[in-house]
Amino acid sequence: MTLELPDIDSIDDPALAARLQHAIDNKTKPVGALGRLEGLALRLGTILGTTAPTLESPQMLVCAGDHGLAARGVSAYPSDVTWQMVENFLAGGAAVSVLARQHGLKLTVVDCGVRHAFAPRDGLLVRKIAPGTADASVGPAMSLAQCEEAVGNGVALMREMPGNVVLLGEMGIGNSSAAAMLLARLSGQDIDACTGAGTGLDAAGRAHKRKVLRGVLELHADATHPLAALAAFGGFEIATLVGAVLQASRERRVIVLDGFIASAAVLVAQALRPNVLQRCVAAHESAEPGHRLLLHYLSLQPLLQLDLRLGEGSGAALAWPLLESACRILREMASFESAGVSRQDSP
Amino acid sequence: MTLELPDIDSIDDPALAARLQHAIDNKTKPVGALGRLEGLALRLGTILGTTAPTLESPQMLVCAGDHGLAARGVSAYPSDVTWQMVENFLAGGAAVSVLARQHGLKLTVVDCGVRHAFAPRDGLLVRKIAPGTADASVGPAMSLAQCEEAVGNGVALMREMPGNVVLLGEMGIGNSSAAAMLLARLSGQDIDACTGAGTGLDAAGRAHKRKVLRGVLELHADATHPLAALAAFGGFEIATLVGAVLQASRERRVIVLDGFIASAAVLVAQALRPNVLQRCVAAHESAEPGHRLLLHYLSLQPLLQLDLRLGEGSGAALAWPLLESACRILREMASFESAGVSRQDSP
Repeated sequence: MTLELPDIDSIDDPALAARLQHAIDNKTKPVGALGRLEGLALRLGTILGTTAPTLESPQMLVCAGDHGLAARGVSAYPSDVTWQMVENFLAGGAAVSVLARQHGLKLTVVDCGVRHAFAPRDGLLVRKIAPGTADASVGPAMSLAQCEEAVGNGVALMREMPGNVVLLGEMGIGNSSAAAMLLARLSGQDIDACTGAGTGLDAAGRAHKRKVLRGVLELHADATHPLAALAAFGGFEIATLVGAVLQASRERRVIVLDGFIASAAVLVAQALRPNVLQRCVAAHESAEPGHRLLLHYLSLQPLLQLDLRLGEGSGAALAWPLLESACRILREMASFESAGVSRQDSP
Repeated sequence: MTLELPDIDSIDDPALAARLQHAIDNKTKPVGALGRLEGLALRLGTILGTTAPTLESPQMLVCAGDHGLAARGVSAYPSDVTWQMVENFLAGGAAVSVLARQHGLKLTVVDCGVRHAFAPRDGLLVRKIAPGTADASVGPAMSLAQCEEAVGNGVALMREMPGNVVLLGEMGIGNSSAAAMLLARLSGQDIDACTGAGTGLDAAGRAHKRKVLRGVLELHADATHPLAALAAFGGFEIATLVGAVLQASRERRVIVLDGFIASAAVLVAQALRPNVLQRCVAAHESAEPGHRLLLHYLSLQPLLQLDLRLGEGSGAALAWPLLESACRILREMASFESAGVSRQDSP
C-alpha cells in the first residue's frame, strides 16, 4: 500500500488575527496583563476561525505500543508495564484517567501494537499492527508498510472522533528511545543531548541507553525521510499519533501536545506537513531533556513547567483548563465600553 | 482598640508527611514523575491533615480599596477604575469573575475602603474604613486604629466563610506601590528593585514612581513593625487581606496567593505569625518584578509562570485546577499493588 497523506492548508488569516487582537486588547484589563493567556486565546481563535471560540467534545487520545528495543535495556521498567498500564488507564486508576475525569475529557486508549491481547471494552480501540515493534538495533522497528498502516489507522480513527480538540497521550515502555532518535534524526541534534532518563534510569542506565541509541542511529543512517525514520525507530503508537495529528490538522482541530513522545509524533507530522504546527498548543515542558530541545526546535512555548515526566497525556490534561480559560476570556469578559471602565488615558 | 492577633500553631507533622510521601510514591507512575504536582499534593495533605485531601467550598476573596498616594501619579490608571472594576467584578465581566465561574469558586468582593458608595447586592460585603487611604507621601496612609480595624474586619469575615480553602484577590489603583513599599521595608530590599510598571507605566512613569516611593519610605523610616509599615503605606484592602490570612491560617485553610499585592498581604501576615507560610500555595509568578523577589524571600515556588500582571485573583483562579488535580491524584490514583503493575525492579 502507499499512504495518501492529506494536504494541510495554512490557516494564517491576518484579518482574523487583527480582530482577535482587538477583542483581547479591549477586555477590561491593562493591555497584555493576562500574559501568555492572551497569546493562547489568539491561537485558539485562529485555529477555530472565530473571535468567540468554544472547545467542544475534547478527546484524550492515548496510543499504546511496545518496542522491541526495550529488550536492549533502554528502559527502567519491563515491557509488561505497557499492557498493565493500559489496563490501569481503562480501570480509571492512572494519572491520565484521574485527570481526564476531572476535566471531562473523553479518554480513548488505542492498542496500536501492545504485546498483549486485551479483552474488548468501552474506551479501548484495537488497531494493532503487531505485538510490539521489532528490535531497532538489528533492523527497522517496522516495515514501511507497517508504518503506513499505523499512520493510516490514526487518520481513520481521528475521522471518527467528535469535537474540535484532541489531546495527545501515549504509553509504551521504550518509547522515549524512539522519540530521542526521531528528534536526533529529524532536527540534526546529537543523540546524547536528546536522550534522558525516561521512566527513571540512573546515570549508568542513561549512559548505556545513549550508547545503544547511537548504534541504532548509525545502523539506520539512510533513514532520513520522516516516514523512513519513523519506520526505523518506531513505534506503532507514535505512527498512529502521527496519522491522528495529520487528520486533526486537516479538520482544523486544536492539537494539545503532552510530553516528549507525543511531541515527537508532532515533530514527524510537521516534517511531512509543516502547517500542522499552526494547530498545536504545547501543554508543558517535561523534565525529559529532549522535550525542551524538541519544543525549541518547533518554536512552541509550553504553558506549564512542572517537571512532569510521566507521559500518558497527563501534562496535556493538566494544562487543559488554561485552554478553556483562554476561550472564556474571549467569550465572556467585558470590554471597557460595555463595562463602563475608564481607560489608561482617561482624565 | 488593640487588635488581638490569633496564635498560629505549626502544622509540621513528620509522621503525616511520611504517610503522604509513601502514598505518592506508591501511585502507578515512576517515583517523582508528576514533578511539582507531587510537592503540591504533599503540601495540601499537610495543611488539611489527611492523606486523602478534599478541597471544599473554595472562596475567592477579592478585597478592594483606594489609595491616597494615587494622586501622586504612581499609577497608569485613574482611581475611579477601582470602583468601576468592583462593579465589573459583581456584574460578572472581569477576568476574575469569568475564571471563578469556570471553576466554581465563590466570589466575594469586599469594599474595604473604595472611594464610592456601592448599592448593596449579592457577592458584595461593605467593610469600609474610609473612602480611600490618606496620601502616604504626607503622612501615614492609615492610622494604627484604622489599620487594626481593617485587619479585624478580615479576621471576622473569614470566620464567617465556609470551606477549607481561600484564594486571595484584590483591586485598588495604586496598590502595587503599597506592595512595593511593604516588600522593601519588611525584606530590606531596595525600593527600585521592588517597583515595577503596575498596570502599565512607561519608563518615565516607572522612574517617577520609584522616586515617589523612595520619598515615602524615607518619610516613614520609623515604621518597621509589620503593622506600623502596613499603616504607613496602606492600603485598606491589604490590611483586610492580612486579617483574612491570619484567620484562615488559624483555621488551617489552604491559602492560595495570587499576584504581587495579595502576596504582600501574606508577607505582612507571616511577619506577624511565621507559621502562616505553612498554609500557603503560590499560584503564579507575576510579570511585576517585585513579585518574584517577594516569593523568593518567602521561599514559595509558584505553580504558573504565565507573565500575568492583572491581580484581582485571576492568577489564583488559573492555578486552581492544579490544586484539585493534586488532591485527586492522592485520592483516586491506583497504587502499584492495587492495579497489578510491575515495579522498576521487577524481572
